[in-house]
Amino acid sequence: MKRFSESTVRRLSHYYRVLEEVHAEGQRMISSHLLAEREDITSAQVRKDLSYFGSFGRRGLGYNVEHLRTEIRAILGLDRRWRVALVGAGHIGAALLAYRGFRDQGFDVVAVFDSSAERVGKTLDELVVQDISKLPECGDIEMGVIATPVRAAQEVADMLVAAGVRGILNFAPRKLRVPEGVAVRTVDMTMEFESLSFALSQTRGKSRRRAGE
Amino acid sequence: MKRFSESTVRRLSHYYRVLEEVHAEGQRMISSHLLAEREDITSAQVRKDLSYFGSFGRRGLGYNVEHLRTEIRAILGLDRRWRVALVGAGHIGAALLAYRGFRDQGFDVVAVFDSSAERVGKTLDELVVQDISKLPECGDIEMGVIATPVRAAQEVADMLVAAGVRGILNFAPRKLRVPEGVAVRTVDMTMEFESLSFALSQTRGKSRRRAGE
Repeated sequence: MKRFSESTVRRLSHYYRVLEEVHAEGQRMISSHLLAEREDITSAQVRKDLSYFGSFGRRGLGYNVEHLRTEIRAILGLDRRWRVALVGAGHIGAALLAYRGFRDQGFDVVAVFDSSAERVGKTLDELVVQDISKLPECGDIEMGVIATPVRAAQEVADMLVAAGVRGILNFAPRKLRVPEGVAVRTVDMTMEFESLSFALSQTRGKSRRRAGE
Repeated sequence: MKRFSESTVRRLSHYYRVLEEVHAEGQRMISSHLLAEREDITSAQVRKDLSYFGSFGRRGLGYNVEHLRTEIRAILGLDRRWRVALVGAGHIGAALLAYRGFRDQGFDVVAVFDSSAERVGKTLDELVVQDISKLPECGDIEMGVIATPVRAAQEVADMLVAAGVRGILNFAPRKLRVPEGVAVRTVDMTMEFESLSFALSQTRGKSRRRAGE
């Protein structure tokens, strides 16, 4: 299979979301134009992205919603369930556990770990928080979520990799070292805030310059 | 000032984080090599990025940590405080409020809104949750955080923009329509999971092919 860029995969995720939405509304066909319009990209880009997967569209009729949805679902690896271990049962961990959207997309958090004596043994969303030392025994886990303080993140990543995890979603604001073949995605909210403050500072500069022109 | 790409700004955020760390450790100088090593990029890239802001480095000595930290801090708009309104007092909202890191970087959540009768009036991290209808009266707000269900996100974005917000951090998995001059960053955790499952599905395919070669 072709290698896709990170941004193509993100657009596929977007298309999938739109398709889920229009499918729920009972719509049978969708145009590349509408897929594009909803996602603020060009319809040519949509057609290019979708052409990788064979010709799903019919000129003048658009794409069959159910068919395209099924195809993208399979491409994104959402046609199966994934066993996920969550490490860190603090606020972020609890928020993730409470969010039903992950389960709906096939991501099952099957174990929760923490190192704090206060949290271990408590029940979070029907799962008993286990001591982090139990992680190596937790069985068949495919993905790990790191929602620990930053200082623990690398050690936890090493433990997850040793436990056979091949994909890590990392909420600690630090790059993790992992062996080749292990995928890491980092959600760094401070960085998003910084990106905003940068953008706002720039705009401010620009308006000032404009005012002075 | 030069326009920076999103990825340059992200690297600046990374450098800033490393600088904060080594500054806390009392280190006075840092090499581009060390800035690069810690962040898994080339030292040439570091020097290129930092050259935009004038010549901070001295050959053989590296960069002065305090000076570079101050410069990047200003560039990222972190040399001031930002007034942030949070909309949505559910799990994600509570997790954000509880996270001290934002305050440390200059982001002050000064108001929290929700539309649920259960949440309005309650106190979250020393802030009383206000009814969303009070948002237009909330005064001088520069950034908004949307931590609402997806169906409410666009309406909330419109309200934030009307209230004068110029930067939005969006946790709802939907692209928001905002006027030019308003910056939006979306943190879409489902999309990160999907990106992982895509990567894992691809690897699986690759190993199969390799086995069959």
